[in-house]
Amino acid sequence: MKDTLHIGGIELENRLFTGTGKFADHNQMKEAIEKSNSQVVTVALRRVDLEAAEEDILSYLPKNVILLPNTSGARTAEEAIRIARLARACGMGNWVKIEVIRDQKYLLPDNEETIKATEVLAKEGFIVLPYMSPDLMAAKKLEDAGAAAVMPLGSPIGSNRGIKMKEMIQILINECNVPIIVDAGIGRPSDAALAMEMGASAVLVNTAIACADNPVEMAVAFDLAVKAGRKAYLSGLGPVSTTANASSPLTGFLR
Amino acid sequence: MKDTLHIGGIELENRLFTGTGKFADHNQMKEAIEKSNSQVVTVALRRVDLEAAEEDILSYLPKNVILLPNTSGARTAEEAIRIARLARACGMGNWVKIEVIRDQKYLLPDNEETIKATEVLAKEGFIVLPYMSPDLMAAKKLEDAGAAAVMPLGSPIGSNRGIKMKEMIQILINECNVPIIVDAGIGRPSDAALAMEMGASAVLVNTAIACADNPVEMAVAFDLAVKAGRKAYLSGLGPVSTTANASSPLTGFLR
Amino acid sequence: MKDTLHIGGIELENRLFTGTGKFADHNQMKEAIEKSNSQVVTVALRRVDLEAAEEDILSYLPKNVILLPNTSGARTAEEAIRIARLARACGMGNWVKIEVIRDQKYLLPDNEETIKATEVLAKEGFIVLPYMSPDLMAAKKLEDAGAAAVMPLGSPIGSNRGIKMKEMIQILINECNVPIIVDAGIGRPSDAALAMEMGASAVLVNTAIACADNPVEMAVAFDLAVKAGRKAYLSGLGPVSTTANASSPLTGFLR
Amino acid sequence: MKDTLHIGGIELENRLFTGTGKFADHNQMKEAIEKSNSQVVTVALRRVDLEAAEEDILSYLPKNVILLPNTSGARTAEEAIRIARLARACGMGNWVKIEVIRDQKYLLPDNEETIKATEVLAKEGFIVLPYMSPDLMAAKKLEDAGAAAVMPLGSPIGSNRGIKMKEMIQILINECNVPIIVDAGIGRPSDAALAMEMGASAVLVNTAIACADNPVEMAVAFDLAVKAGRKAYLSGLGPVSTTANASSPLTGFLR
Repeated sequence: MKDTLHIGGIELENRLFTGTGKFADHNQMKEAIEKSNSQVVTVALRRVDLEAAEEDILSYLPKNVILLPNTSGARTAEEAIRIARLARACGMGNWVKIEVIRDQKYLLPDNEETIKATEVLAKEGFIVLPYMSPDLMAAKKLEDAGAAAVMPLGSPIGSNRGIKMKEMIQILINECNVPIIVDAGIGRPSDAALAMEMGASAVLVNTAIACADNPVEMAVAFDLAVKAGRKAYLSGLGPVSTTANASSPLTGFLR
Repeated sequence: MKDTLHIGGIELENRLFTGTGKFADHNQMKEAIEKSNSQVVTVALRRVDLEAAEEDILSYLPKNVILLPNTSGARTAEEAIRIARLARACGMGNWVKIEVIRDQKYLLPDNEETIKATEVLAKEGFIVLPYMSPDLMAAKKLEDAGAAAVMPLGSPIGSNRGIKMKEMIQILINECNVPIIVDAGIGRPSDAALAMEMGASAVLVNTAIACADNPVEMAVAFDLAVKAGRKAYLSGLGPVSTTANASSPLTGFLR
Repeated sequence: MKDTLHIGGIELENRLFTGTGKFADHNQMKEAIEKSNSQVVTVALRRVDLEAAEEDILSYLPKNVILLPNTSGARTAEEAIRIARLARACGMGNWVKIEVIRDQKYLLPDNEETIKATEVLAKEGFIVLPYMSPDLMAAKKLEDAGAAAVMPLGSPIGSNRGIKMKEMIQILINECNVPIIVDAGIGRPSDAALAMEMGASAVLVNTAIACADNPVEMAVAFDLAVKAGRKAYLSGLGPVSTTANASSPLTGFLR
Repeated sequence: MKDTLHIGGIELENRLFTGTGKFADHNQMKEAIEKSNSQVVTVALRRVDLEAAEEDILSYLPKNVILLPNTSGARTAEEAIRIARLARACGMGNWVKIEVIRDQKYLLPDNEETIKATEVLAKEGFIVLPYMSPDLMAAKKLEDAGAAAVMPLGSPIGSNRGIKMKEMIQILINECNVPIIVDAGIGRPSDAALAMEMGASAVLVNTAIACADNPVEMAVAFDLAVKAGRKAYLSGLGPVSTTANASSPLTGFLR
């Protein structure tokens, strides 16, 4: 049986979402995204040059990926809504990742404004994936507001610090009905595998790939790790104990 | 360029070592080991029935794997040495994993006896892989004694607790000249990936595979995770920061 | 120079806040609170029997403590506001700990409703201490709404799991202008000391004291730990390094 | 009932051992040690100027402390033995902290040599406290060799990294019959409290006190933290749970 992720009427086979920021150049980005096997790629609308088609970042993305324009730069629900509508008007599809951020130091999102933007955009037919600060009640409200998935941060964007908010993310996974996609802070493939083992539906990784010494190979590493973590989740992890449990028989047969 | 691990004159492409304990039956074990792509498999000599060839565990192992008989059951260097010699005499090859354990609760090894056994067996031409309690000075002595690799425990055998001895294992990886193979305690693919990201040369996983709900699929998961972690190590992990680093440009282009 | 905490015009010398729930009986509670040296004690209005004065929980509290009625049981801002007003009308003073909780499994607060209640009650002259899910933007809004301090949870109420939300709580401590008081989840004195070392202004501990085998002695332990952590914070913790730094001279004087 | 620690026929009331290295000057050291209430103070024999009595470090130590000369600088059991004998011959008493260290980067001890030195010195009537790399089998051998207590490291000396070897130290505490004194790496009072909560009999702290901005106040903080942790251990920590447990009644009495 195929294990697929359904979001917005689309059936995804790959659970690694990627981003387009921080790569050395467009060609490196293109190759890394291709090698990652990612099917959903987020891009800041700001980066899309709507006139200079030649150099447009979009032309470097694999043909079959789902574009996930994000509202990076938005400081309020209203601004996020405007960016989302503009992206759709420009032909970037109806998926949108809501980012409402005023904090410039940690880039932490404003859950309240995010909920408002989600509600409006979901009603307008967008497939809304909100970036959020992990908090169960906010996640439930995003769910109620029509979010197609909820994207809690593991730690601050681009920090590579790993899943520091693990406790709350596990609660979101346990209690929410929409897919949980861990976004931000994932710094290593082991972090991505851990998120998947916890039951996350997908992860979004950008900085850890783009800022590796070898982004293309790191993209492959994350693809493998996400698959490993997902497979482990589906295969039922064994029990954890305080003391040891012999793998090999201990009876001393020589005595 | 191929990334291979050299131990005892053998060039290994796969860095996941597996074990034969705790599987529901021999067929399940056989399938899990095959799917893991493991090239080195440890087996307690006690399990090998030297007479009933038909049901012999060895007949269920893939033809091309390197057999790593372990001295499970040994309580002293002397006993470990006898088991190793017996294994070789029985045609099980010249690789041996030294386990000298008297503690029945946590199954923690005796480093001092392990060093003694290593010295004797290495001189006799064995390829010696000693299981040990992570301790830099003991690891250096094992190296001096002729160990082909050193196998520190992550946490007690079969506990699935993960790499609790991370601090010391990292020091071993930094300071030793022989390969470090993390053995015992690895409970999830993310643990295995982490060990590899830290620079371990390989990991040995048995319980976490054998005690999963679906051991065969879990074996695949570990294979992927080890590859992911190794690839990440080779690709150069990006820097970790306390504050955020924007992946997407933040200049509000709408304002 | 005295190190005091100013909240609502009051100067507190002790930074351990306590609660009144889960004790075996009122006398045990009374003794534990006395021994804790706590100057602020939270009590659910529900517990206060406004008629049976004799058995009233309030009569067991030390005379000089500041009563911090909480709105336990409130599921909306409106309900929290009603409870707060009722408490004040009953002569319980003008401090109030806002708790707005609908989640019955993890008892996680609703930040959005909490902000609303804080705004209304602060305007009515209450000294408002809101219990919240750690989230920087919500904390800033509580600050703007007039909160006298902000009380982020370390982990779910009564879980004794410790400061699992450490990453975000540290950010709150760094970025907020009002005192941060870590509430919920503190399970051991070392957790309380850690919160204070991080720069928290105070901690609230209830379950870990009340559910200890010896609540009275555990109250003393928490008092000491909070003082230790605060003193460490003020004394400037030394630098952390990856390698060692000799405490004793290493030059071998015997050689 | 008094809670005291018995080592070498001495009854100690205070469980914080301190050191004499790294202070700005002898007066600061003197004041910090006094304020710490420490009853056992370690000093490298190298520091003791046997001729210039005036400036001798020993003259700055409180009169009633037990001197714990350490063998800092020793690289073998033999050297440690010589230093210990010399210290005793100089009138420094019969307590000795064995340190056998060849690793200059992490200052990690050699357990095997340490066991040898312990055996010899214990037979000569010394009260031997060996510094060791946490390892159950080595600890049991130290016990058998006559150690009065065993001193596992939490993390490298002077690193302030905390109790990174927690897993193995807990096993030592559970399984050994002699007192376990956590030494090295303790960076904050919360680390010291944690060690005591785990059941350690004492802790030794030097760098974290001496390298604080205010060593004298930090010494007080550690004294309080050790007392807090010990008291918590004796008072029986409450149970830890995954979900919440209400401290306050949740029945909405307003509805």
